[in-house]
Amino acid sequence: MQRAAAAWVRRGCCPGTRGPWRRGRSSAAAEAPAVLPGRPERAPRERILTPESMNPRVRAVEYAVRGPIVLKAGEIELELQRGIKKPFTEVIRANIGDAQAMGQQPITFLRQVMALCTYPNLLDSPSFPEDAKKRARRILQACGGNSLGSYSASQGVNCIREDVAAYIARRDGGVPADPDNIYLTTGASDGITTILKILVSGGGKSRTGVLIPIPQYPLYSAVLSELGAVQVNYYLDEDNCWALDVQELRRAVREAKEHCDPKVLCIINPGNPTGQVQSRKCIEDVIHLAWEEKLFLLADEVYQDNVYSANCTFHSFKKVLWELGPEYSSNVELASFHSTSKGYMGECGYRGGYMEVVNLHPEIKGQLVKLLSVRLCPPVSGQAAMDIVVNPPRPGEESFAQFVREKEAVLSNLAEKAKLTEDLLNQVPGIRCNPLQGAMYAFPRLLLPPKAVEAAQAHGMAPDMFYCMRLLEETGICVVPGSGFGQREGTYHFRITILPPVEKLKTVLQRVKDFHVQFLEEFA
Amino acid sequence: MQRAAAAWVRRGCCPGTRGPWRRGRSSAAAEAPAVLPGRPERAPRERILTPESMNPRVRAVEYAVRGPIVLKAGEIELELQRGIKKPFTEVIRANIGDAQAMGQQPITFLRQVMALCTYPNLLDSPSFPEDAKKRARRILQACGGNSLGSYSASQGVNCIREDVAAYIARRDGGVPADPDNIYLTTGASDGITTILKILVSGGGKSRTGVLIPIPQYPLYSAVLSELGAVQVNYYLDEDNCWALDVQELRRAVREAKEHCDPKVLCIINPGNPTGQVQSRKCIEDVIHLAWEEKLFLLADEVYQDNVYSANCTFHSFKKVLWELGPEYSSNVELASFHSTSKGYMGECGYRGGYMEVVNLHPEIKGQLVKLLSVRLCPPVSGQAAMDIVVNPPRPGEESFAQFVREKEAVLSNLAEKAKLTEDLLNQVPGIRCNPLQGAMYAFPRLLLPPKAVEAAQAHGMAPDMFYCMRLLEETGICVVPGSGFGQREGTYHFRITILPPVEKLKTVLQRVKDFHVQFLEEFA
Repeated sequence: MQRAAAAWVRRGCCPGTRGPWRRGRSSAAAEAPAVLPGRPERAPRERILTPESMNPRVRAVEYAVRGPIVLKAGEIELELQRGIKKPFTEVIRANIGDAQAMGQQPITFLRQVMALCTYPNLLDSPSFPEDAKKRARRILQACGGNSLGSYSASQGVNCIREDVAAYIARRDGGVPADPDNIYLTTGASDGITTILKILVSGGGKSRTGVLIPIPQYPLYSAVLSELGAVQVNYYLDEDNCWALDVQELRRAVREAKEHCDPKVLCIINPGNPTGQVQSRKCIEDVIHLAWEEKLFLLADEVYQDNVYSANCTFHSFKKVLWELGPEYSSNVELASFHSTSKGYMGECGYRGGYMEVVNLHPEIKGQLVKLLSVRLCPPVSGQAAMDIVVNPPRPGEESFAQFVREKEAVLSNLAEKAKLTEDLLNQVPGIRCNPLQGAMYAFPRLLLPPKAVEAAQAHGMAPDMFYCMRLLEETGICVVPGSGFGQREGTYHFRITILPPVEKLKTVLQRVKDFHVQFLEEFA
Repeated sequence: MQRAAAAWVRRGCCPGTRGPWRRGRSSAAAEAPAVLPGRPERAPRERILTPESMNPRVRAVEYAVRGPIVLKAGEIELELQRGIKKPFTEVIRANIGDAQAMGQQPITFLRQVMALCTYPNLLDSPSFPEDAKKRARRILQACGGNSLGSYSASQGVNCIREDVAAYIARRDGGVPADPDNIYLTTGASDGITTILKILVSGGGKSRTGVLIPIPQYPLYSAVLSELGAVQVNYYLDEDNCWALDVQELRRAVREAKEHCDPKVLCIINPGNPTGQVQSRKCIEDVIHLAWEEKLFLLADEVYQDNVYSANCTFHSFKKVLWELGPEYSSNVELASFHSTSKGYMGECGYRGGYMEVVNLHPEIKGQLVKLLSVRLCPPVSGQAAMDIVVNPPRPGEESFAQFVREKEAVLSNLAEKAKLTEDLLNQVPGIRCNPLQGAMYAFPRLLLPPKAVEAAQAHGMAPDMFYCMRLLEETGICVVPGSGFGQREGTYHFRITILPPVEKLKTVLQRVKDFHVQFLEEFA
């Protein structure tokens, strides 16, 4: 018995006592199992799945938005719950774009339709508006057995794909959209992962290269690691409001050709974590480059409703592609992505999203459906949520006024917080923040003193990770270090969401300021 | 213009006119775009993403349950809608285990809790029972912002993982289960895919080999193709009710070692597509073998509630592992899977599921959470559905009687249909069907005349694909050929679900019989 127990502990897997859930046998028996009489004792077996034997591509994956700093935040929360004293009373999770977790209320109409779809007995209830019932009936009629509990087609429910196509056509001023080119997905991440999976091939110098902006949203680097593709960085221009610089993109393509086959270009617009909104001219230039360099375009447009600066407008890649004329619109291959998680609805938990493909080879469409069919279908409740996002109440309908009021309230509140965040961060000495033209984040630059950089190195940490860990431990504010998104060598940043309510956001930013000033003094 | 249009058609991507959704520009303009005056015309560009350039591993993926026969079924449905006459009036999709699409009603309590979680205003409604409200409040309190619209932790909502652990402990007669070992997933497929992703490594002779039963559920072969793992087949014993034969498993391991590193063993119990329920003795033998041969066990137990034969009982691998004593329970690595999609609830569309891991290396747990965090979280509504499955109404609670009534009605109905299907299929000359001990399918063997096999070959089809296509075209019944699951060379089968309502199922089986008799005559 001792031997087995010792081996267990040696391998570090004794889970300790963790609360009320250990039922049945005593936890001691579970954790340090005895050898029963009459059975031969064998030497503890080496594990099959270990950090050494596991898939090295998975080992190489990094995902900062939920990385070490977030694990640390969880530990601190547990300590607070246990009554351990800290210089703060709560952890504020400003690391992730999770609006409803920060108190944003769901759009009433959306949840009404979802509740009706979930429990159709409510269709007889007088407490639900007729337009919500109409939407719910339409969705249910398109579901197998009239139920959200049936699988949908792998590509998604037909009528929802039709609604998505109609939405895109409206959004893009009449540019046609074909429901056959719409694939409903489990959030936008699923669509991005799936199309990259199909795109990546080759080995050695013909390995697929995928161009991603730096700073990037780390889904991209994570998926590229997993697929063994070559990540090709192009740097956004911090001195120019994080604009995409086509010359820099051209440089990245040219240099990439020396060691891989660059054939995919990812764009995030509005930018995450950088918040810039791409100009129409810039999108045109990117499309010209994609044509010349034979690049497949991936346009991550999940923040299309989140544009705050008065002089900025969202232009979809699809629309600009069409406006450039048929030689482009009938040739350049494009996949664009949207989601229920961002915008004004913030329905992250439902994992709804869609992908629109343009000029995809017809056989590849078949391959795509085949690949998607292995996971059967995206969550049907998430598909329903996506439907309501693309097919909201219309003028004249019962819920229209309330819907518009709620939507505008969320968006104007976000615009106010974008400006507030920029202004307050720029008042901190040693912090410089570009305007937040769109999306949900600030990505300010930190001017860290050399002694802080040395201290970080002594701790074996990236300097901004060191900074963010200290910020978390001293203020309870959880943000993500710039090194998790990528940045120019020798520069340091963090990403902070603008989602806390205004008063709380002010407190957060004041605490960041106080921390920063004290940090600068400490390492002066 | 002609040139561009011609090129478009040549590449086969002109989508044709497909209905009312083409808005904005005319469809003609969209499909055969004109070259605008003043722009230089360029030669149509070759596509970047083609069947030749795509990821060859994805190209190699097959997934029969939604494969060519299902595409054909969709075409036939469209033809019926357009009024084209057929020898039948509807397509019956007996290809997929989608209970609610076949008319099974959702469990009332489950949907009540889901509706309350979706639209918490209903918590004030007198039309919902108190026990449902209590469940909903508990789930919401564990969600960020008390909303299903927030992201959950990557591993799943804490209290739901606790409920899953308590369920497993109850199910397994007190064997302890730790919420830390529970990972909520997007259906069971997601869990299976994720753990395989981590397990697969190596190249050449040290490439990971994964043992799967033949016939198998084609998720396994599809994921192994995608990951580039070596699929190692072990054949279930059709002459012995599709039992797992440990000697055959041993043979498969031995032969695999000559060309790969077999280190994962997948078990499906109750079997899909084969419907056998594994005996306790057999599970013991498999565990002994896993110990000896150093195999990581994957136990797909999504049909654990679907056991019909009086002399069969479901035993979980976890429970048997524990009963074999600590040398096993503290050493053998196991992941087991469950889902909201099957059982008596049939909530496929919500994509709920969980994975329990046993003896996983602590660092691998971290790797797993990291990998899962890239997709952010499983759909929270699916997590909530999973919670209700593992934490249903208890004796004394308001909804208990109705819940038990509904659950028993579904399960006894399925048991009746399992027997009916076996009996009717065995009345057909040239069809032989094992007892359906569990799950939701029959997988009868077809004795096809040599002339039918020759005719199939002339059409370039597997003989059972030829048979199933003919069955679909002549009767409207959509089933999946055995070749999509794997079978012993020279044997032919199909998989049919037992989910249609009893009277419809009788009609379906009668039509299969008539078709089969006529097919035999045709190729006698």
